Amino acid sequence: MNFIDMLAARWRTDDTLLAVGLDPDPARFPPHLLERPDAIFEFCRSIVDATADLVCAFKPQIAYFASTRAEDALERLVAHIRARHPAVPVILDAKRGDIGSTAEHYAREAFERYRAHAVTLSPYMGFDSIQPYLAYPDRGAFLLCRTSNAGGNDLQMLDAGGERVFERVARLAASTWNTNGQLGLVVGATFPAELARVRALVGDLPLLVPGIGAQGGDVEATVRAGQTSRGVGMVVNSSRAILYAGQGADFAERARGAAQAARDEINRYRLR
Amino acid sequence: MNFIDMLAARWRTDDTLLAVGLDPDPARFPPHLLERPDAIFEFCRSIVDATADLVCAFKPQIAYFASTRAEDALERLVAHIRARHPAVPVILDAKRGDIGSTAEHYAREAFERYRAHAVTLSPYMGFDSIQPYLAYPDRGAFLLCRTSNAGGNDLQMLDAGGERVFERVARLAASTWNTNGQLGLVVGATFPAELARVRALVGDLPLLVPGIGAQGGDVEATVRAGQTSRGVGMVVNSSRAILYAGQGADFAERARGAAQAARDEINRYRLR
Repeated sequence: MNFIDMLAARWRTDDTLLAVGLDPDPARFPPHLLERPDAIFEFCRSIVDATADLVCAFKPQIAYFASTRAEDALERLVAHIRARHPAVPVILDAKRGDIGSTAEHYAREAFERYRAHAVTLSPYMGFDSIQPYLAYPDRGAFLLCRTSNAGGNDLQMLDAGGERVFERVARLAASTWNTNGQLGLVVGATFPAELARVRALVGDLPLLVPGIGAQGGDVEATVRAGQTSRGVGMVVNSSRAILYAGQGADFAERARGAAQAARDEINRYRLR
Repeated sequence: MNFIDMLAARWRTDDTLLAVGLDPDPARFPPHLLERPDAIFEFCRSIVDATADLVCAFKPQIAYFASTRAEDALERLVAHIRARHPAVPVILDAKRGDIGSTAEHYAREAFERYRAHAVTLSPYMGFDSIQPYLAYPDRGAFLLCRTSNAGGNDLQMLDAGGERVFERVARLAASTWNTNGQLGLVVGATFPAELARVRALVGDLPLLVPGIGAQGGDVEATVRAGQTSRGVGMVVNSSRAILYAGQGADFAERARGAAQAARDEINRYRLR
């Protein structure tokens, strides 16, 4: 099954729009885990196993693995998800963006080495920097569109001939760039009006929405602004608020509780 | 010595604006190297040792290492350059771009794990996605501005209130974003008119210019358009045309010949 169909199945059959972001920060791990040589893998595996039935995707952030020389933990983690939770897709949050020959190597990294089902990309270098990822017909790619950080205004909000730069990215991703139906967009939860604007521009395109939880995005406004007319179309990501809900021996149970609450709160505002 | 001063010393004292891009592609390695388990490291080390006196910087492209699980080769390579060629800075071509907490991890990857002197970054997420790199006061960062690929037109050429998006990036990088003099810009060699425009906007800011050699940029037009009034200010990168100048046992010697020719051709058009 391709990535978009996997996601749609999670939304409908498993009734969840929540994604758990896997940003492992050893400084915030429960003390008992730190004694283990494979603490990063064990932490993430515990979170994954405790929350898999509650999520539509997992989103590992590669920087957290790369900064600590833990690429092998990321490989093992995706292999574990594929083996134990085969219906749950993995979105590798990497925000790559480079010319074609280099992009081919990044695509190989994401899709062959790590075996992710989808990847996040930067649109700044244009369509030919996206194309090499689309050569993997069963995978997906989310392009940065309107990001949730303060600096997101610097370029994304520039007025370019009557539309903002982020609106241009949204239109391109929903039309000429989306040659095989593999694209989605990253739109932060902190600006519901712009999330609604993107939804209006892109039809049913999947939106990856970070920014609820620790980043402060409002769940009700986010879901009302970003869902499709059938109450789906979003991957609402929460990382720190779930990963670090507890710091004791019961951290995975606490993470499950936080994930369940987040999923239910999101579902409360979905159109049915 | 900080990165910008190292670069300036190479330009003036060593009389070179050339950078060699390290994009190791095992499919193009000399056959005798492929038998070695550390072929990627050995290939790059041979190129580095054969060309170090001819270059102002080395620019490893991280995708080529990540796609083949060769992060350790990249670590060893930078350690080798720092030990054997301590005056030559290393620019890690990674084009990262993410929110602050994640950018901190990418900065740690580039500057602490790999010990690069500078890194390439995407500006799409704005200033707060650049700031964590500037916290390393002796390092540098080149922001994507006007790229040499066809898709570079898609967003970079949009007219945003009387200036193109790439011009806006150039102005920001030369003024408010450049809080501590650590920034440079990536401007492709395939558009000399736009390279000249960027130079006019940014004063003496360092420009990293890929696109000569295999990508077809014209050296004379590139150097005339991009240099400062004192004939410096550019890091002119060539990768494939140097790395794969020969494919026999003498590949390093052939690479040296190609690098020497490229350095000399660049120098021919420099203001003195």
